[in-house]
Amino acid sequence: MAEQSGNTARSRAGQTGRNAAPGFGTDEPAAAARIAAIRERIDEIDRTLIGLWQERAELSQQVGATRMASGGTRLVLSREREILERFRQSLGADGTQLALLLLRAGRGPL
Amino acid sequence: MAEQSGNTARSRAGQTGRNAAPGFGTDEPAAAARIAAIRERIDEIDRTLIGLWQERAELSQQVGATRMASGGTRLVLSREREILERFRQSLGADGTQLALLLLRAGRGPL
Repeated sequence: MAEQSGNTARSRAGQTGRNAAPGFGTDEPAAAARIAAIRERIDEIDRTLIGLWQERAELSQQVGATRMASGGTRLVLSREREILERFRQSLGADGTQLALLLLRAGRGPL
Repeated sequence: MAEQSGNTARSRAGQTGRNAAPGFGTDEPAAAARIAAIRERIDEIDRTLIGLWQERAELSQQVGATRMASGGTRLVLSREREILERFRQSLGADGTQLALLLLRAGRGPL
Protein backbone atom coordinates (compact mmCIF):
# COMPACT_ATOMS: atom_id res chain seq x y z
CA MET A 1 0.00 0.00 0.00
CA ALA A 2 2.82 2.37 0.93
CA GLU A 3 4.66 1.11 -2.14
CA GLN A 4 1.66 1.73 -4.34
CA SER A 5 1.23 5.25 -3.00
CA GLY A 6 4.95 5.78 -3.54
CA ASN A 7 4.67 4.68 -7.14
CA THR A 8 1.76 6.98 -7.71
CA ALA A 9 3.66 9.95 -6.36
CA ARG A 10 6.74 8.93 -8.34
CA SER A 11 4.66 8.74 -11.50
CA ARG A 12 3.13 12.16 -10.81
CA ALA A 13 6.49 13.69 -10.11
CA GLY A 14 7.99 12.28 -13.27
CA GLN A 15 5.24 13.62 -15.51
CA THR A 16 6.06 16.53 -17.73
CA GLY A 17 3.42 18.29 -19.76
CA ARG A 18 0.56 15.82 -19.29
CA ASN A 19 -1.17 17.99 -16.72
CA ALA A 20 -1.42 21.74 -16.29
CA ALA A 21 0.66 21.26 -13.12
CA PRO A 22 4.36 21.56 -13.86
CA GLY A 23 6.80 18.73 -13.16
CA PHE A 24 8.90 18.69 -10.04
CA GLY A 25 12.15 17.76 -11.77
CA THR A 26 12.67 14.76 -9.49
CA ASP A 27 11.41 11.16 -9.39
CA GLU A 28 11.77 10.93 -5.61
CA PRO A 29 8.29 11.12 -4.01
CA ALA A 30 9.35 12.72 -0.72
CA ALA A 31 11.35 15.39 -2.54
CA ALA A 32 8.44 16.03 -4.93
CA ALA A 33 6.04 16.44 -2.01
CA ARG A 34 8.38 18.84 -0.25
CA ILE A 35 8.82 20.86 -3.46
CA ALA A 36 5.03 21.00 -3.97
CA ALA A 37 4.58 22.37 -0.44
CA ILE A 38 7.26 25.04 -0.85
CA ARG A 39 5.84 26.04 -4.24
CA GLU A 40 2.47 26.71 -2.66
CA ARG A 41 4.04 29.36 -0.44
CA ILE A 42 6.03 30.76 -3.40
CA ASP A 43 2.82 31.07 -5.43
CA GLU A 44 1.18 32.88 -2.53
CA ILE A 45 4.15 35.26 -2.31
CA ASP A 46 3.94 35.90 -6.04
CA ARG A 47 0.27 36.82 -5.82
CA THR A 48 1.07 39.24 -2.99
CA LEU A 49 4.01 40.72 -4.90
CA ILE A 50 1.81 41.35 -7.93
CA GLY A 51 -0.90 43.01 -5.83
CA LEU A 52 1.58 45.21 -3.97
CA TRP A 53 3.31 46.11 -7.23
CA GLN A 54 0.04 47.35 -8.71
CA GLU A 55 -0.93 49.24 -5.56
CA ARG A 56 2.51 50.86 -5.33
CA ALA A 57 2.49 51.98 -8.97
CA GLU A 58 -0.92 53.55 -8.50
CA LEU A 59 0.07 55.34 -5.28
CA SER A 60 3.29 56.60 -6.79
CA GLN A 61 1.45 57.96 -9.81
CA GLN A 62 -0.95 59.71 -7.40
CA VAL A 63 2.03 61.36 -5.71
CA GLY A 64 3.31 62.64 -9.05
CA ALA A 65 -0.12 63.86 -10.12
CA THR A 66 -0.68 65.61 -6.77
CA ARG A 67 2.70 67.29 -7.02
CA MET A 68 2.25 68.50 -10.58
CA ALA A 69 -1.32 69.70 -9.93
CA SER A 70 0.09 71.91 -7.15
CA GLY A 71 2.69 73.39 -9.47
CA GLY A 72 5.52 71.22 -8.11
CA THR A 73 8.13 69.11 -9.85
CA ARG A 74 7.40 65.92 -11.78
CA LEU A 75 10.02 63.91 -9.88
CA VAL A 76 11.90 64.27 -6.60
CA LEU A 77 15.33 62.82 -7.22
CA SER A 78 16.34 62.77 -3.55
CA ARG A 79 13.35 60.52 -2.82
CA GLU A 80 14.25 58.21 -5.74
CA ARG A 81 17.83 57.96 -4.50
CA GLU A 82 16.58 57.11 -1.01
CA ILE A 83 14.44 54.27 -2.39
CA LEU A 84 17.25 52.92 -4.56
CA GLU A 85 19.56 52.93 -1.56
CA ARG A 86 17.04 51.15 0.67
CA PHE A 87 16.61 48.32 -1.84
CA ARG A 88 20.33 48.08 -2.56
CA GLN A 89 21.19 47.83 1.13
CA SER A 90 18.61 45.10 1.70
CA LEU A 91 18.93 43.06 -1.49
CA GLY A 92 22.25 43.99 -3.08
CA ALA A 93 22.54 44.36 -6.85
CA ASP A 94 19.15 42.68 -7.37
CA GLY A 95 17.68 45.34 -5.10
CA THR A 96 18.99 48.10 -7.33
CA GLN A 97 17.43 46.46 -10.39
CA LEU A 98 14.16 45.92 -8.55
CA ALA A 99 14.06 49.54 -7.35
CA LEU A 100 14.73 50.85 -10.86
CA LEU A 101 11.76 48.83 -12.13
CA LEU A 102 9.58 50.06 -9.26
CA LEU A 103 10.53 53.69 -9.84
CA ARG A 104 9.79 53.39 -13.54
CA ALA A 105 6.41 51.82 -12.85
CA GLY A 106 5.69 54.59 -10.33
CA ARG A 107 6.38 57.34 -12.85
CA GLY A 108 3.66 56.01 -15.10
CA PRO A 109 3.37 56.74 -18.82
CA LEU A 110 5.60 59.71 -19.75
CA MET B 1 -2.83 80.89 13.22
CA ALA B 2 -3.98 78.89 10.22
CA GLU B 3 -1.75 81.12 8.12
CA GLN B 4 1.21 80.49 10.39
CA SER B 5 0.69 76.75 10.30
CA GLY B 6 0.37 77.00 6.53
CA ASN B 7 3.65 78.84 6.32
CA THR B 8 5.36 76.27 8.47
CA ALA B 9 4.17 73.45 6.28
CA ARG B 10 5.11 75.43 3.18
CA SER B 11 8.58 75.98 4.53
CA ARG B 12 8.93 72.28 5.38
CA ALA B 13 7.73 71.23 1.96
CA GLY B 14 10.14 73.59 0.22
CA GLN B 15 13.16 72.34 2.12
CA THR B 16 15.62 70.24 0.22
CA GLY B 17 18.53 68.54 1.90
CA ARG B 18 18.31 70.24 5.31
CA ASN B 19 16.71 67.25 7.00
CA ALA B 20 17.08 63.54 6.44
CA ALA B 21 13.46 63.61 5.24
CA PRO B 22 13.31 64.18 1.48
CA GLY B 23 11.49 67.17 0.00
CA PHE B 24 8.03 66.83 -1.41
CA GLY B 25 8.72 68.73 -4.62
CA THR B 26 5.87 71.16 -3.99
CA ASP B 27 5.39 74.34 -1.95
CA GLU B 28 1.67 73.77 -1.52
CA PRO B 29 1.01 72.56 2.08
CA ALA B 30 -2.10 70.47 1.33
CA ALA B 31 -0.32 68.71 -1.54
CA ALA B 32 2.76 68.11 0.63
CA ALA B 33 0.61 66.60 3.38
CA ARG B 34 -1.15 64.32 0.92
CA ILE B 35 2.17 63.22 -0.57
CA ALA B 36 3.57 62.50 2.90
CA ALA B 37 0.58 60.29 3.70
CA ILE B 38 0.83 58.33 0.44
CA ARG B 39 4.58 57.90 0.93
CA GLU B 40 3.98 56.26 4.29
CA ARG B 41 2.01 53.52 2.60
CA ILE B 42 4.61 53.24 -0.18
CA ASP B 43 7.36 52.79 2.42
CA GLU B 44 5.30 50.10 4.12
CA ILE B 45 4.83 48.34 0.78
CA ASP B 46 8.57 48.54 0.11
CA ARG B 47 9.39 46.94 3.46
CA THR B 48 6.94 44.12 2.68
CA LEU B 49 8.35 43.70 -0.84
CA ILE B 50 11.88 43.38 0.54
CA GLY B 51 10.83 40.80 3.13
CA LEU B 52 8.88 38.74 0.62
CA TRP B 53 11.74 38.95 -1.87
CA GLN B 54 14.15 37.52 0.68
CA GLU B 55 11.72 34.79 1.77
CA ARG B 56 11.00 33.83 -1.83
CA ALA B 57 14.68 33.60 -2.77
CA GLU B 58 15.33 31.36 0.21
CA LEU B 59 12.35 29.08 -0.54
CA SER B 60 13.26 28.83 -4.18
CA GLN B 61 16.82 27.89 -3.32
CA GLN B 62 15.42 25.21 -0.97
CA VAL B 63 13.41 23.80 -3.87
CA GLY B 64 16.53 23.59 -6.03
CA ALA B 65 18.60 22.02 -3.24
CA THR B 66 15.84 19.47 -2.48
CA ARG B 67 15.61 18.54 -6.15
CA MET B 68 19.33 18.13 -6.68
CA ALA B 69 19.77 16.18 -3.43
CA SER B 70 17.19 13.69 -4.75
CA GLY B 71 19.06 13.31 -8.02
CA GLY B 72 16.71 15.58 -9.94
CA THR B 73 17.34 18.48 -12.28
CA ARG B 74 18.77 21.84 -11.20
CA LEU B 75 15.97 23.80 -12.88
CA VAL B 76 12.46 23.04 -14.14
CA LEU B 77 11.98 25.23 -17.20
CA SER B 78 8.23 24.61 -17.45
CA ARG B 79 7.84 26.04 -13.94
CA GLU B 80 9.97 29.08 -14.80
CA ARG B 81 7.90 29.69 -17.94
CA GLU B 82 4.71 29.47 -15.89
CA ILE B 83 6.01 32.11 -13.44
CA LEU B 84 7.16 34.43 -16.23
CA GLU B 85 3.75 34.14 -17.86
CA ARG B 86 1.90 34.85 -14.61
CA PHE B 87 3.87 38.07 -14.03
CA ARG B 88 3.64 39.14 -17.66
CA GLN B 89 -0.13 38.70 -17.73
CA SER B 90 -0.57 40.70 -14.53
CA LEU B 91 2.02 43.43 -14.96
CA GLY B 92 2.93 43.52 -18.66
CA ALA B 93 6.53 44.10 -19.73
CA ASP B 94 7.50 45.20 -16.21
CA GLY B 95 6.19 41.85 -14.98
CA THR B 96 8.51 39.98 -17.31
CA GLN B 97 11.49 41.97 -16.02
CA LEU B 98 10.40 41.44 -12.42
CA ALA B 99 9.95 37.69 -12.93
CA LEU B 100 13.38 37.38 -14.56
CA LEU B 101 14.93 39.04 -11.49
CA LEU B 102 12.92 36.81 -9.14
CA LEU B 103 13.93 33.66 -11.00
CA ARG B 104 17.58 34.64 -10.95
CA ALA B 105 17.42 35.37 -7.21
CA GLY B 106 15.71 32.02 -6.68
CA ARG B 107 18.45 30.09 -8.47
CA GLY B 108 20.99 31.37 -5.99
CA PRO B 109 24.76 31.47 -6.59
CA LEU B 110 25.67 29.29 -9.58
